[in-house]
Amino acid sequence: MPNPTAAMLVIGDEILSGRTRDANMHHLAGQLTAVGIDLREVRIVSDDAPAIIAAVRAMSARFDHVFTSGGIGPTHDDITADCIAEAFDDSIDVRDDARALLQAHYERSGQELNTARLRMARIPATATLIDNPVSTAPGFAIGNVYVMAGVPAVFQAMVASVLPGLTGGAPLLSRSLRVMRGEGDIAGPLGIFAADHADLSVGSYPFQKDGIYGANLVIRGQDQERVDAAFATLEQLFVS
Amino acid sequence: MPNPTAAMLVIGDEILSGRTRDANMHHLAGQLTAVGIDLREVRIVSDDAPAIIAAVRAMSARFDHVFTSGGIGPTHDDITADCIAEAFDDSIDVRDDARALLQAHYERSGQELNTARLRMARIPATATLIDNPVSTAPGFAIGNVYVMAGVPAVFQAMVASVLPGLTGGAPLLSRSLRVMRGEGDIAGPLGIFAADHADLSVGSYPFQKDGIYGANLVIRGQDQERVDAAFATLEQLFVS
Repeated sequence: MPNPTAAMLVIGDEILSGRTRDANMHHLAGQLTAVGIDLREVRIVSDDAPAIIAAVRAMSARFDHVFTSGGIGPTHDDITADCIAEAFDDSIDVRDDARALLQAHYERSGQELNTARLRMARIPATATLIDNPVSTAPGFAIGNVYVMAGVPAVFQAMVASVLPGLTGGAPLLSRSLRVMRGEGDIAGPLGIFAADHADLSVGSYPFQKDGIYGANLVIRGQDQERVDAAFATLEQLFVS
Repeated sequence: MPNPTAAMLVIGDEILSGRTRDANMHHLAGQLTAVGIDLREVRIVSDDAPAIIAAVRAMSARFDHVFTSGGIGPTHDDITADCIAEAFDDSIDVRDDARALLQAHYERSGQELNTARLRMARIPATATLIDNPVSTAPGFAIGNVYVMAGVPAVFQAMVASVLPGLTGGAPLLSRSLRVMRGEGDIAGPLGIFAADHADLSVGSYPFQKDGIYGANLVIRGQDQERVDAAFATLEQLFVS
């Protein structure tokens, strides 16, 4: 049986203007190759609704899976979700499930869920959410299209959420712990923890915020009890 | 007046498989931005004739300029030239002008112009050649499409050959000198030479072959006499 095929659509002006160099394409290409899915085409388009809609329709019709990155943030030029809804003739509005995720996230961090941030809860009616263990605002899947963030750490975490479901494996459950220490401090004990939990996937997604280094540590597995137990151990290790 | 628009088509499996990370897209994006041409879309397709032909036709119709990279080498999977000819309903065969360039190049280097290398002289009948000061085998322009090599040093040299003609400047003439010394040895005197010839463009394209470092030094300018005089000086400097 031939391998399943895939395409990627990168949305945004940063790469086309030469300001930034692609990281997500390279990451996805490697991940897909590793699981035996053939990445056949990549398109990069700017924040332009007709271009996005046309590309999504063309690629969705031609390939088994389509992955998009970029354009799902809180600013006016984040138009990906609305374009995807239109490409699938679906309706779109702020959805209660996505709003609840954001509400809880911003309450925890003491920030306001303002109108701009609420944009990130605009999800097509028939889509299912994609877990974002790094910064909460979800991606979504509709038809054979997986809509993910452009920030590399978030993109990578979402790819890790999505891929097991495409390769016939059971969907992975995840729990994540935000640790306000640099990865250099974390790496030693985290490596031992990962070796002790070889049946789970343990990831570290570093960030820097207001000059402070931190990381989101993500545990993924198929069994909720195992994941919960490992999470409790992780908390003991890194939250004192 | 709005800026002219452009698109890029990257041809080949290396990036899609994750083996290599794109360099040409980033280079072209920066160069186009610098001269006020808007890069609106990039597509990456594999060595697949229908995909290449469809992409070239779609992009050529929609944008002012289209740049391609990859698939014009000597091996069986280098099918770009034939695909471009088909996209423009043009005929294609080994062309005398391109063959003469390759013949002279391989005679100088004592290598045989075999059947495989002769593939690089297959050029659509109505195309014009694009200068390749690094490794001789030419690119070509047909309609609004510029067909260039995938090897980054060659791609960059071809972009430098093509861009002035797109921005209303006079076409540049070039002469190149192959120097079998590393760039670290060359850089000092070459910097002084470039400063002494501020009306010309002076480029260095390094290579490594059989463990020996070298560089193709390229002089570009609008006036043949100035270019020739500068070339003579360059020879005195670096060929002893």
